[in-house]
Amino acid sequence: MTIDQLAGGLDTIWVVLSAAMILLMEGGFALLEAGFVRQKNAVSIIMKVFVDITFGALVFFLFGFALMYGKDAGGFIGTSGFMLDGDLAHIQYLISHETYWLFQCAFVIAVISIVSGAVAERFNFKAYILYTIAMTGIIYPVAGHWVWAVGGWLGKLGMIDFAGSAVIHALGGFSALAAAMFIGPRIGKFNQDGSANIVPPSNLPLASVGAFILWFGWFGFNSGSTLSAANFYEAIGHIAVTTMLAAASGGAACILFTMLRYRKSDPPMVINGALAGLVGITAGCAYVSDGAAMLIGAVCGIAMVFATEMLERRGVDDPVGAFAVHGISGSLGTLAVGLFAMPELTKGFGLETAGLLYGGGWQLLGAQALGLVLISAWGFGLTWLVLKAIQAVVPVRVTSDEELVGLDVGVHGVPAYSQEHDFIALPTMDGK
Amino acid sequence: MTIDQLAGGLDTIWVVLSAAMILLMEGGFALLEAGFVRQKNAVSIIMKVFVDITFGALVFFLFGFALMYGKDAGGFIGTSGFMLDGDLAHIQYLISHETYWLFQCAFVIAVISIVSGAVAERFNFKAYILYTIAMTGIIYPVAGHWVWAVGGWLGKLGMIDFAGSAVIHALGGFSALAAAMFIGPRIGKFNQDGSANIVPPSNLPLASVGAFILWFGWFGFNSGSTLSAANFYEAIGHIAVTTMLAAASGGAACILFTMLRYRKSDPPMVINGALAGLVGITAGCAYVSDGAAMLIGAVCGIAMVFATEMLERRGVDDPVGAFAVHGISGSLGTLAVGLFAMPELTKGFGLETAGLLYGGGWQLLGAQALGLVLISAWGFGLTWLVLKAIQAVVPVRVTSDEELVGLDVGVHGVPAYSQEHDFIALPTMDGK
Amino acid sequence: MTIDQLAGGLDTIWVVLSAAMILLMEGGFALLEAGFVRQKNAVSIIMKVFVDITFGALVFFLFGFALMYGKDAGGFIGTSGFMLDGDLAHIQYLISHETYWLFQCAFVIAVISIVSGAVAERFNFKAYILYTIAMTGIIYPVAGHWVWAVGGWLGKLGMIDFAGSAVIHALGGFSALAAAMFIGPRIGKFNQDGSANIVPPSNLPLASVGAFILWFGWFGFNSGSTLSAANFYEAIGHIAVTTMLAAASGGAACILFTMLRYRKSDPPMVINGALAGLVGITAGCAYVSDGAAMLIGAVCGIAMVFATEMLERRGVDDPVGAFAVHGISGSLGTLAVGLFAMPELTKGFGLETAGLLYGGGWQLLGAQALGLVLISAWGFGLTWLVLKAIQAVVPVRVTSDEELVGLDVGVHGVPAYSQEHDFIALPTMDGK
Repeated sequence: MTIDQLAGGLDTIWVVLSAAMILLMEGGFALLEAGFVRQKNAVSIIMKVFVDITFGALVFFLFGFALMYGKDAGGFIGTSGFMLDGDLAHIQYLISHETYWLFQCAFVIAVISIVSGAVAERFNFKAYILYTIAMTGIIYPVAGHWVWAVGGWLGKLGMIDFAGSAVIHALGGFSALAAAMFIGPRIGKFNQDGSANIVPPSNLPLASVGAFILWFGWFGFNSGSTLSAANFYEAIGHIAVTTMLAAASGGAACILFTMLRYRKSDPPMVINGALAGLVGITAGCAYVSDGAAMLIGAVCGIAMVFATEMLERRGVDDPVGAFAVHGISGSLGTLAVGLFAMPELTKGFGLETAGLLYGGGWQLLGAQALGLVLISAWGFGLTWLVLKAIQAVVPVRVTSDEELVGLDVGVHGVPAYSQEHDFIALPTMDGK
Repeated sequence: MTIDQLAGGLDTIWVVLSAAMILLMEGGFALLEAGFVRQKNAVSIIMKVFVDITFGALVFFLFGFALMYGKDAGGFIGTSGFMLDGDLAHIQYLISHETYWLFQCAFVIAVISIVSGAVAERFNFKAYILYTIAMTGIIYPVAGHWVWAVGGWLGKLGMIDFAGSAVIHALGGFSALAAAMFIGPRIGKFNQDGSANIVPPSNLPLASVGAFILWFGWFGFNSGSTLSAANFYEAIGHIAVTTMLAAASGGAACILFTMLRYRKSDPPMVINGALAGLVGITAGCAYVSDGAAMLIGAVCGIAMVFATEMLERRGVDDPVGAFAVHGISGSLGTLAVGLFAMPELTKGFGLETAGLLYGGGWQLLGAQALGLVLISAWGFGLTWLVLKAIQAVVPVRVTSDEELVGLDVGVHGVPAYSQEHDFIALPTMDGK
Repeated sequence: MTIDQLAGGLDTIWVVLSAAMILLMEGGFALLEAGFVRQKNAVSIIMKVFVDITFGALVFFLFGFALMYGKDAGGFIGTSGFMLDGDLAHIQYLISHETYWLFQCAFVIAVISIVSGAVAERFNFKAYILYTIAMTGIIYPVAGHWVWAVGGWLGKLGMIDFAGSAVIHALGGFSALAAAMFIGPRIGKFNQDGSANIVPPSNLPLASVGAFILWFGWFGFNSGSTLSAANFYEAIGHIAVTTMLAAASGGAACILFTMLRYRKSDPPMVINGALAGLVGITAGCAYVSDGAAMLIGAVCGIAMVFATEMLERRGVDDPVGAFAVHGISGSLGTLAVGLFAMPELTKGFGLETAGLLYGGGWQLLGAQALGLVLISAWGFGLTWLVLKAIQAVVPVRVTSDEELVGLDVGVHGVPAYSQEHDFIALPTMDGK
């Protein structure tokens, strides 16, 4: 037994366990979304999460990973590592390339799951499969390459995004916004005069436990992004603490703020408030102080409430608040790094940079802002284009009959919940 | 790469992963409690768990941790480490102070969650926020200091409580009892003649999976309390096994015992039986044999059944059995250490002590009993006083209108479950 | 701090965390099965999972482990290690015997849980306890000894089964088949003419999240089976990736295949398709390439669909598809090792063997086939015999009254879900 072997073993189990925790977040997304939507669409949204994790993993293995982390071409795209084959010598960690892939795979699946919520209750299943292939194979890998790959041009420009407030959440959130706008609101959501109607979430206990599972997975997401336990053990503890504090702060802020604003502590807003805090700290978890983490969490939580209201006023229908949680908090979190990054913390990762409030001047903040705008625009624009293209092949939206009866029975032929106690004859299938 | 770095990395990921597992237990508490209460209060109990984890974490960061683990003053209280600042040199582990804080933070959140169950379906939300601040900021930190802090007087006296049968569970359980007695039973729970009425749990599958999540988290809770993987690796395995055996034994005992006593294996009792076994082994998991663990689990499981019945006969209304599970089993587990602690196991942690049955005489048992009485009385008494004080500011109990309609709609404005398929106009808010 | 201590610590937390993940799979089984069965039997199936984890753990501690991993007698059975006592010197890992036991205990509980699903909605609770004792104490330990114990005769013959496609899943699946056939179909499942009736699953969101939890736990199941992080760190990453790819491939194949076959993507089939992929890769996860993993996953997913249909045509009632998922995919996965095992991967575990397609000839494939047949026959035959024996003592099947009213109220006296808002008087128990 040598020290190097031990270090390899340590880093490997750290990354594998973190990846497993992130993948469990798909269960969290499924519960959160199934709980937030109407009962008649609970299965259909979960089936989309199954598309995320199954097609997403395969596509990212076949070519998404290569475009993201393969040998750099011009700072823009990767070109090797299809099916983990070919030259990946530039990826140098103690962990194997396969272990590295697993962790990155868990990330891409999270991105596409963000979009699934915004288009809930009305997106065609086949079209969703095609969009998933585009997102996990091209849209995310290319944007991710710019920031995280060796040679990516935004990274070289100085943009930093530790675990992905921009690369994961702003990208996912703005893509979700584009998709929600492209497909239009659910039937009955808005009145002729533009005022919004509501429907209570179908299952808040499920949605809540989804949030707790997401919170759990986020420790893997953020702390695991160190990719090495031996080299960054103080950082791992710090990251876990800023993650915890931002989430707590986002949730607490929403508990108090909704009590003031609505005269009742609003459960869906509190759930999303904790998630907003988590999204907001994702970029800066390794770089900002505990105090900044609490501030970021609270600001993101409250901003999420306003963003949710604003979207509704503007006639955009985002059933689970995907844009408000991921798009807005992801943006704020990305910019916050430009303000609060501390030189003594960035140094630990070999970076010589600091935020505006810690003597770094406008440089970092500028890079963050530029990167954020480009990544968000990329996500929004590409999603729009891809949906246009898909539309030419297969309708992006379900029929209104399917929508009215619900996608569970209408599309997948089975209700989410059944109190039936007795057997019934199997319906004859047409054409059989 | 040095050996020390590796050891730091190993201990850090061990403690961070354990802490994440304990924090996931909040999801378990939320499911368990939401499943046990009536459907009309399922969201309200989950919102209280959100208060636990959000306010609890922030308060424990701001001052709770300092009072618990700060520089000792007279064996009674800590005095440094507010916001993790100031002299904490007496806390010496391979892990950083932040990592240490995260683990302890997960503990305090578990304590307050115990209380949330006992006051379910009738506690005012604002009052609960205030009580949470008191519990996580003062009540628990002070009692915890006595046993676990460097210089704590009960620890110096020889009391040992590995992962908190007394400090976490007896304290939480007796605080829960005080709160349940202070606030009184739910409307309709007891008849004029003192006989009890029942209502079936609203969602037993949710409650069950809550128990499985708690069981999972308990491995982090107990084994993680070693705070070091390198120094205690044999102990970690032993702790995990005693934890497993006690849980299995508590559950199996309740399966058989309720079959005898009620002529049917009673699901809520079986769920709570496994949890009682877990609570009971928490103090002694590192110090007792596998055989003793099975005995402790079985005794705690059966005692829980009797305690549940007794409480009901005495007119105390504890909707989820928090006192029976945590108060009683926590007490039994604390005392069991005084009987079953083995010198060869305590020695591994630098202790020279043993239980009555292993040649240690009455000394350890006496320390355990004294500590248990003091901690339980402290929890009960302080909770009563704090609720008295809160009562002066804001009613501790919801109105009977709110209670009858249910706290979900009555207080939080939204039902837990909705089968509504169509949108409805947003209700106008008063004063807007 | 020495290197050996560190290695011990590293391997211990790896195995303990993996074991905890596998034990959480019981929560996954509980949700999956409760979601698939009718609402009136949701609690009863969960209670059986509680029997699995409580009685299973105790029995495996008392004697199951000894029969499986104790000192070998004739290649057929173990003979030491009752209550972890006695000569276990032949088990040589860095982890302690207790840690080793915990991991193996998590395995045996998974096996018995497979059977619980196949007999759902009609099995007598007392009889189930007796069967659990037989399975966890004798049936599985003996078959497991043949393959995995030092000296086991199938292992010596060259059969390899990394994490148990045969030992866990084929054994569990064929035992499940025997039990389902022994007890017969649920009332109303089949018509006089042999045609099948259906009932929609009671709670697909619960079943789905059960699948995500199982998927999460599988990383512990497969990667954790290395039992050492330091010695096998490249293998751990590879195993995690093949596990991920097979699951994704099984799920994706079922998404597409059911769209073709049923004109809708069938949610229960997709859930089971991902699980079939996981079952199929369990034997070969360490030995086959990523490409083979995808192929194995897809084949297992589609085979599961056909097997489910075939069983129904043959009048066998397996409510959750336990045989189709575990029996069929377990068999295919066991045989696949004989085709796809790569010499460079088996070498890493000290084996000199390879599959048919990698120059190993028919030898490995033959050993796999022989072992599979024997293990499956052992599971099927012993289960049949044990149920015969149990039948002589206590009825294996519930009464038709209990079945019609549902086992939850009929046997356990409480419904799974209750919308009751008001208290009711406690029913008087007969004879009290």
